[in-house]
Formats: sequence, structure tokens, C-alpha cells
Amino acid sequence: MGLIVQKFGGSSVANAERVMNVARIVTETYHSGNDVVVVVSAQGDTTDDLIAKAAEINPKASKREMDMLLTAGEQMSISLLAMAIESLGYPVISLLGWQAGFNTNSAYGMARIKSIKTDRLRAELDKRNIVVVAGFQGLNKYDDLTTLGRGGSDTSAVAIASALHADRCQIFTDVEGVYTADPRKVPGARKLKEITYDEMLELATLGAQVLNNRSVEMAKKYNVEIEVLSSLKRVPGTIVKEVANVEKMLVRGVTKDTDVARISVVGVPDVPGIAFKLFAKLAAKGVNVDIILQSVGRDGTKDITFTVSEGNGPLAVELVKEVVDLPDEKIVCDTQVAKISVVGAGMETHPGTASKMFEALYEINVNIQMIATSEIKISVLIDEKDADRAVTAVHNKFLPEE
Amino acid sequence: MGLIVQKFGGSSVANAERVMNVARIVTETYHSGNDVVVVVSAQGDTTDDLIAKAAEINPKASKREMDMLLTAGEQMSISLLAMAIESLGYPVISLLGWQAGFNTNSAYGMARIKSIKTDRLRAELDKRNIVVVAGFQGLNKYDDLTTLGRGGSDTSAVAIASALHADRCQIFTDVEGVYTADPRKVPGARKLKEITYDEMLELATLGAQVLNNRSVEMAKKYNVEIEVLSSLKRVPGTIVKEVANVEKMLVRGVTKDTDVARISVVGVPDVPGIAFKLFAKLAAKGVNVDIILQSVGRDGTKDITFTVSEGNGPLAVELVKEVVDLPDEKIVCDTQVAKISVVGAGMETHPGTASKMFEALYEINVNIQMIATSEIKISVLIDEKDADRAVTAVHNKFLPEE
Repeated sequence: MGLIVQKFGGSSVANAERVMNVARIVTETYHSGNDVVVVVSAQGDTTDDLIAKAAEINPKASKREMDMLLTAGEQMSISLLAMAIESLGYPVISLLGWQAGFNTNSAYGMARIKSIKTDRLRAELDKRNIVVVAGFQGLNKYDDLTTLGRGGSDTSAVAIASALHADRCQIFTDVEGVYTADPRKVPGARKLKEITYDEMLELATLGAQVLNNRSVEMAKKYNVEIEVLSSLKRVPGTIVKEVANVEKMLVRGVTKDTDVARISVVGVPDVPGIAFKLFAKLAAKGVNVDIILQSVGRDGTKDITFTVSEGNGPLAVELVKEVVDLPDEKIVCDTQVAKISVVGAGMETHPGTASKMFEALYEINVNIQMIATSEIKISVLIDEKDADRAVTAVHNKFLPEE
Repeated sequence: MGLIVQKFGGSSVANAERVMNVARIVTETYHSGNDVVVVVSAQGDTTDDLIAKAAEINPKASKREMDMLLTAGEQMSISLLAMAIESLGYPVISLLGWQAGFNTNSAYGMARIKSIKTDRLRAELDKRNIVVVAGFQGLNKYDDLTTLGRGGSDTSAVAIASALHADRCQIFTDVEGVYTADPRKVPGARKLKEITYDEMLELATLGAQVLNNRSVEMAKKYNVEIEVLSSLKRVPGTIVKEVANVEKMLVRGVTKDTDVARISVVGVPDVPGIAFKLFAKLAAKGVNVDIILQSVGRDGTKDITFTVSEGNGPLAVELVKEVVDLPDEKIVCDTQVAKISVVGAGMETHPGTASKMFEALYEINVNIQMIATSEIKISVLIDEKDADRAVTAVHNKFLPEE
């Protein structure tokens, strides 16, 4: 008995059958005596289809008009879900982002939620309505529609849970929860019962795309407990919270990210300010740099190696050339690399973690190109072809099959 | 130089190519120095597709949620048209019904416009923006989306033209204007330069589906001059106004309506109140009755014959049976009938019109089943198989080829 916010992504409402499935989950929750607010994304490929339609007419359409177009996607899914809930005989009302009180700033396409005016939401809950809210969207101070950017529906759900002080925020996806590694690739991967916000953030950044990062950041900020679970299989999922039950597990997950390019700059003059100029330039052009490695100066030169996303590789090379005057063969971009990471909040107090990871890789003869560590994460860059067996080896080293 | 409202229907914006075509018409009008407000319907079959999607999930969906679903249709078309206009380098903004200030009552699915708050529209025009407005939709006092019903975009356009005191309201369609008969069927049919509101109303009711009736009623009420013209062929259309130039033409058009069922009730007891009870019952169930014919009483009984739309035929028969106690063979529904009408404001002062029409039908040996006349219209009911040649014969009698 309480107030539960449930969020369903596009694939969970992709067709009539799945919409009915969601309607059943929602009404069962309501039937158990809970107030329910449901946040929904656009159906299946709707958003991509709309983007394609716009591109056919104007590939450089303004973001304001793109948001006007894309917000129609959730408008369709909320009304269809409401109709499905009506057909099961429950009281329901659908609300657009602005009707649900979502005020955002004016950064079309990636707007930030400024506040939620909950009057309408509360009034509908008081009438004992199930409230279906369009995720991903809001209204700015000019009364124009905005979108929160990809994955924004997770953020909408967490924001509503926070604003209404909900007892739980359930994010339904097509996986059963958060796993210690990709279960399709690593046979021994297990589902976690609990995980901390910080661990979840590291895992999300590293390519375990279960929850949108901004939603986790918001959940952490407002201390909203999230449950990640499957919309297709009725089993308990993973709880994301401030302090997770450690379950004697040092490491929470092992992830692989192949969307990585390694840029090597060999023989940079060893004078002050070069690194600063280089990375300032990359930042100014919006190129995110992940791992950085700089060799000790020798013979008046040094080597700088760093990683960016694959798509930013060619641009990064161009920008390097603008800063350092070196022949082409000295500036190399390698996309055949992968980043393998272990994540776990307990890690910082266990100094042996890094060496244990290196040992696992050594045992299967995988060469480490770069290393980066943070308080709850160790990442290594390796050859892309070794990535899958590296994940399995590292995973089984830390999380042997029980 | 002035303020022009232009309305484009669903087929005019059915695909990317047609959206670009509309963008060119709009920007040419703007380029000539006019302020332009464009009202757009949903693209092509969007509305029907959405209705089908809803029916798959819940055939008895609430009208409130249907309106939430359907209004997404124009939201997509306005943004796509705005993007097309952007691509031609003109300043433009799209506005939803509620953003354009459309306040309606709460009759979901067939809402009436109560007022238009023009602040936003005027502000955008003051910025020299082309304003693209979603037709067919508004907002009720509960801040919920409503639709005006089929053809409602015409009404939206006329309402904006009236509210902004526009110099002209152009309704673009896939025909070139209003014709004296269906040009695909009657070779001698010609396009009218001008027509009065009343004539247009009669023609629309009779099946010449060029303009939505409510929009013509509104145009008449607020004296908004409408031009009906083609979005594909750049030629002058037909002006709809209070007093039209008669052009020496008595008759403005000849129409055919085959969506008619004739109900014959034979041998009704000739006692007072039967007709009243019957038609009150039909009205209470929402069955519109068109032509009514009652025979003179004879042998204590009389015959009542009336027409309804084909879809209402079976219901009408049921309702008749509830009022009069007659065997089944005495209550007959015939759908193989057609209504042929001539319309013209000059008609009332020319008593020969009816006999001229009957003469034309007599000449081609067509039997007249029922007759109805109004100040500007004469309708006859005939066998459906004779309908096309009857239209041609009547048309050529009144409007011989020049």
C-alpha cells in the first residue's frame, strides 16, 4: 500500500499485445491497493521513424520543431496505454508532460527539468485514477514543448517519484535487472539484488545500458530508490539505492565498451603547456576524453595517448594536428580496442583488486595497453578481438560460479 | 499585402514532396509581403491509422483518450511543415491548438470553439514569423485536449481568420474549387467564381464535400470570405461570400447523394400523434431524417415514407416497429435510392425551376419517388441506378454547355 511510479520503455509498449501486458502489470499494482503513476516512452521505433521523416524534409531542422515532432510519440503511447487500462475496467487518465507539470529549461532536445508542479497529478490520484504520464517531455517558460533527450523517460519517472515522494520507482525494461556482466556473453553472470547509485553510474557509463545516467544521478540526489525489472518476466529485479547490501561481493560488475578509439601521439616536444593546449582544444570542440596516458619525457620528446569514442576519432586526430606539428604517421588512431572495467564500491578499501584483474588477463595472455582507476572502478584498454574472453576471465576471477 | 489564413488538408501534406509543395505556396504568399497563418490537418491517412490502432486495443475507448491520441496527428504535420518552411529559409513557428489559443467546450470528439485567445498568434506574427497552426484541436477548461470532429480544420481556419480579422481565408483542397456538378461525372460541369454561404451549405449537405459545413456556418456568422482552391494547380478557385455575383446563373450546382435509405411504412393507423411519436423517437436516438412524405389518409390508414442515411436504415426500421404495430412486410427499407438536388440562391424567385428539373428527368425516363423543396434547393429521390445520368440531364438542362 503506497504510491508507486512505474516506467515502461518503448520496447515494452511496442505493439498492442505489449501495451495490454503493461496494462495488466499496472492494474495489478493498483488492484493491490497502491496509487500508481505510469511513465511511458514512445512505442518501439516511433522516435526513430519520426527522426527519419524529419530528415527527409529538412536534415537541419531546428531543435524546437524536432521537439514538437518527437513529443507526439509519447502522446500516442500514453493514450493507447490509457485505453488498454480502460478496457480492463480501471479508472485512468493520460497526461502529457506539460499537463503533469513538467517545467524545463529551453535546451530543446536535451532540456533539464526545473520543477514539477504536482497539482494535476495529485488531483488525479485523489480521484483514484491511474495516471499515465508521457515521459521524455516538458514545457519551457515560453509555453513550448521540450524533450529531455534520449533515455529521458527514466529521468521523468525518477523526477515524479521524487516530487510525489513515491514509495518506489520501478523501471521496467527488457532485461531482468542489473547483472555482474552481460548474461548473453558471460555464462556465469548473475543478477544483483542491490547496487549503489555510484556503482550503477559507473556501470551505465561503461556500456551496461540499463538505466539512463541522468536518472541515476537524480535518484542519488533526491534519494529515490529505483527497482530495475523486466516487463515480460515477473521476477524480482535489482534495487538501486544509496547503500547496497554488499553480499560479500567486492566487484559488482564487469563491463565491456567497444565504442573506443585510442589516439597515440608519438614524439611530442617535451615543453610545458602542450598537454593543456591539446585537451583544452578537444574540450572546446566537445570531444570527451576518457583515459589519458603520458610517457615520461626522453630525448626532449614524450608520447601522449588518450581515448575518445569511435565517432570522435577522426576529429580528435584533426585537432591534435592543429596543436602539434608532427608528420601523419606520428598521430595514430586505433579503433580496434576495447575497454574492460570492473566496478564495485568495496574496491577502494581492497588494494588487491587491480592486481587480481591483471592476473586474470595475464592468465589468458591478453596484453594491457592502458590502465585507468577510480575509487570504484578499474578499466583497462585491450585489443578488441580479446574483449569477450577477457570479460569472462575477469568476471570468473572475481565472481566464480557458485 | 495583408493577413492571409491558408488551410491545407491531409492529402495536401500526405508525404514529404507534398509538404514541400505546401511550404512553397506558403512562402510565396509571405514573400509577397503578407502575414501568413497556416492551418494544417494530419497527414494523409494518419487519423484513420490512429483510429485503427486504438480499435485494436480498445474498440470502446473513451472519447477523452481518443482525442489525446488523434491530436498527435496534427502535431506531427505542423512540425514537419515548419521544418519544410525552415529549409526554404523563412522564419516560422508551429503552434498546437492550445498554443494558438483555441478554447473549446468539453464535447470530446466534436468540441465547439468557445474563443480564441490571440496573444501568442499576434506575438508570433509581430516577430514576422509564418505561423503554422494545428487544425482540428483545442483545449477545454480542464486543460485537456479536444478535437472538433471530422473536417474541423476548416473550422479552425475560419475561426482564426475571424479572430485575427484576416483579409482572406484560403482553403486548399485537391479540387480546383466548387463546381456546378461533379466534374468527373458530368462533362459540362464548370467551376463557379463565386457562391453564397447558403448555397455552399446546401451543396455541402448534399454531398459535394469541398468544405466542412460548420466552417461555412461560422464564415457566414462572422462574415469571413473563403476561397476554395487547389494546392496542386495554381489557378483561381471559388470565393464563398455573403452575396455572390449571380453570373446570370439560376442554379449553382447539381449534386448526387447515394448515402440515402428510404423507409416506407405502409398502412399506418390514421390516428393523431403517430407521426409525432415516430419522429420524436428517431430524433431521440440521433437518427437524422431528411425528406418526409405522408400520404393522405384512406380506409382509416395512411403511408409514411422518409429518408435517413444508409447507416441509420436498420436502426430506423427497429424504431418504427417500436411505435407502430405492423407486420414486417409493411415496413420496408430501400437503400437503392439516390437524392439528386439543384441548388441556387436565385431559385426562390423563379417558380419554374422545379418543373424544369422534372422535365429533365421525364425526358430521360427517370421516375421520381419523393420530392422536397427549400428556398434555394429542390431535391428528388430516384432509383440509384439512374443517378449519374439524372445528374447530367438536370445539369445540362439548367447549365447547357456554352
